[in-house]
Amino acid sequence: MLARTLVELIAAKRDGAPLAAAEIERLVQALMAGELADYQMAAWLMAVFFRGLDDEETVALTQAMLHSGRVLDLSVVPGVKVDKHSTGGVGDKVSIALAPLVAACGVPVPMVSGRGLGHTGGTLDKLEAISGFRTDLPVTDFVRILRDVGCCMMGQTAEIAPADKRMYALRDVTATVECIPLIVASILSKKLAEGIDGLVLDVKVGRGAFMKDERAARALARSLVRVGTLAGKRVVALLTDMEAPLGMAVGNAIETREALDVLLGGGPADVVECTLELGVEMLLLGGVARGHAAATASLRDAIESGKAARTAERMIEAQGGDPRAVTDRARLSVAADEIVIESPRDGYLARVDAHTIGLAAVAMGAGRTRADQAVDHAVGIFVEKKPGAQVTRGEPLARLRVRNAARSLLAADRVRSAFEIADAPPAARPLVLDRIDVSSTAAPTSD
Amino acid sequence: MLARTLVELIAAKRDGAPLAAAEIERLVQALMAGELADYQMAAWLMAVFFRGLDDEETVALTQAMLHSGRVLDLSVVPGVKVDKHSTGGVGDKVSIALAPLVAACGVPVPMVSGRGLGHTGGTLDKLEAISGFRTDLPVTDFVRILRDVGCCMMGQTAEIAPADKRMYALRDVTATVECIPLIVASILSKKLAEGIDGLVLDVKVGRGAFMKDERAARALARSLVRVGTLAGKRVVALLTDMEAPLGMAVGNAIETREALDVLLGGGPADVVECTLELGVEMLLLGGVARGHAAATASLRDAIESGKAARTAERMIEAQGGDPRAVTDRARLSVAADEIVIESPRDGYLARVDAHTIGLAAVAMGAGRTRADQAVDHAVGIFVEKKPGAQVTRGEPLARLRVRNAARSLLAADRVRSAFEIADAPPAARPLVLDRIDVSSTAAPTSD
Repeated sequence: MLARTLVELIAAKRDGAPLAAAEIERLVQALMAGELADYQMAAWLMAVFFRGLDDEETVALTQAMLHSGRVLDLSVVPGVKVDKHSTGGVGDKVSIALAPLVAACGVPVPMVSGRGLGHTGGTLDKLEAISGFRTDLPVTDFVRILRDVGCCMMGQTAEIAPADKRMYALRDVTATVECIPLIVASILSKKLAEGIDGLVLDVKVGRGAFMKDERAARALARSLVRVGTLAGKRVVALLTDMEAPLGMAVGNAIETREALDVLLGGGPADVVECTLELGVEMLLLGGVARGHAAATASLRDAIESGKAARTAERMIEAQGGDPRAVTDRARLSVAADEIVIESPRDGYLARVDAHTIGLAAVAMGAGRTRADQAVDHAVGIFVEKKPGAQVTRGEPLARLRVRNAARSLLAADRVRSAFEIADAPPAARPLVLDRIDVSSTAAPTSD
Repeated sequence: MLARTLVELIAAKRDGAPLAAAEIERLVQALMAGELADYQMAAWLMAVFFRGLDDEETVALTQAMLHSGRVLDLSVVPGVKVDKHSTGGVGDKVSIALAPLVAACGVPVPMVSGRGLGHTGGTLDKLEAISGFRTDLPVTDFVRILRDVGCCMMGQTAEIAPADKRMYALRDVTATVECIPLIVASILSKKLAEGIDGLVLDVKVGRGAFMKDERAARALARSLVRVGTLAGKRVVALLTDMEAPLGMAVGNAIETREALDVLLGGGPADVVECTLELGVEMLLLGGVARGHAAATASLRDAIESGKAARTAERMIEAQGGDPRAVTDRARLSVAADEIVIESPRDGYLARVDAHTIGLAAVAMGAGRTRADQAVDHAVGIFVEKKPGAQVTRGEPLARLRVRNAARSLLAADRVRSAFEIADAPPAARPLVLDRIDVSSTAAPTSD
């Protein structure tokens, strides 16, 4: 059979015909070689939005995007390398505690993270609140630090999955972001380029998450696990709640502080739980613990013994940062002005809208609406009360830390609007909604 | 309500929500102003492919494309100006006879035509077989000739509907050509930019046409009539057969010759019928005849009296061409070498595949596969037998006129493959399959 032209491949997907793996690879290669124009890829992406990709096609797209750039060779690092990826939420600072904690338990964690955009923050922005901390490392340094310390956290380089970068930029402006196979290929291509053996996915669900409803989040999680497994990796996903912000801190320096507190044995209960549950999965994938209880014990021991905190210090130091930030609160400077949001009445906190809190943090300068904006590491929001809490009139619900209180009244209004007080307590929500591994995705067509 | 962003307009169409006329206008204007990128328009076009446009949206798109450029002002030309547009077929040279014929009957015909691409030829290429004939006229000349002669035939200038040009170029390479509302807006925006009052559409159906099946062709015809009427024009459509080539000649000079023969009272029966039936509709829209019979009589009289041929001569002369081409066969030079395709056996001609004949003509150099190719006016194919004809073994089915017979054997094989001989005659097919006017499209949602 004669090879189909690139336009015929667009038409085939448009008409719902499956594409061969080699054809998908050809589309991606042609895009990167300038033989397929951006407008042709945009049309193909919109056709995929309507027609979908099956698992084989999604694997092929993942592999093509992955191999559009450099795939890290971590063979000099012994052990089963495991990373964690979160689909993004408000107050999600878990990576900063998780990487050193899991590394302290003997599982190497090569972590390539992103920056904040829109209402969700980014791990890189939070880490850079630590004085001197560098996330733009040469790959050789990344591999060396990973080998010496057990973990390293850097930003995506131009060499990693450039096709994903190109396609994501297109999707962002062509209304083709909300498409599960494209999301799956985008996430996995970047993560697989790290040279990992295993991946734990934290798929967030709720108002503060990319996936607002559980059905869509579950479909995404199942697809990630299926496709990642087909691509030869050990993959497991947790579905976790993102109705309200995770933890109490939303910002950069204050989130890093909260994450480091977990390594010192403190931190809000939900951040601790999320960190431990994801850590358990990473230890299990890494093969250093047998069963949930043993893995949990190992993680707790790493915290209590100080091993986790020391690993964080070593990683921060290796990446040019000030390791005293781990134990000395003053090293992470926070804006001085404060605005307190008080409860308008007695009652129970029914809801803290993570999306609204996230947007308020962006408006305060903690995040960005365009990729080229700088962030202010020192500003942030402390969520003092969590859903279910009993509150009395005048009691603080949140504290904003801002550069200038007088200029931050709109942001304060927005934060205020995120809190909903009711007469009765809301139904309790578990943090971890579900766990999905390859055995629970046995029927790939059931979504 | 806050105006939606351009990306939100793509998302809205993607999700099946209707767009306001002003929103569609904004998309087209933003494209032309460089605020909407080609890849965004490509994504929107693919979304339209899946979700469609309703009549109001299609009118808005037509108007926006129309007003992206110059709209001719024909107010200095008295009368109801009527044009004809064909969706394209093989051997369709009707315009060349029709414009002077209808003009001779008193209806001004401002005709902006296209060039051949793919298996179908183009009127401009055929006209340029006439020595000196210019189709790239300044608009002032076009209007003057229209006023003085009654008809003028030129190519689309860069000033006419530039948004259509831009969007068509995108559709061509993004698999979004086959979409009725986009086809309708493309055709009507160009035609309405001519400043016409009425339009007769020849929607071709069959192997040699863009629309292969009657259902799709009928849907296109109905949409063209509905949308054109909503845009304030008098519009009628004929559905005509394009299984076999129209007439006997397929090429450039030989097609022009065949069309001019019609003005002299000759020409193949199907070309005469197609010309007269479309001419009748133009006279009726132009208000110069009452009823089919009177219009037919008027057209026949214009031929028999020589008025039609003289109008053609005057138009050709006004456009720089040699008017002797109308009566002197030798003025349209045809390649000297001939290849005769003979019937392989006795029987009845069951089929002459217009698409195959069209592709053979392109391969011979009569057409083009890329817009920047030149065409050879002198080569072509004479189809000697039409479907239904009784043939005997060895009898000529077609004659190829080529530059070099030895180098044209592949084209000859292709022409041969277009003929299918059967033991019994095929069912007779009418040329005009249906007539669609605004009264027959009363239920706009029935397609």
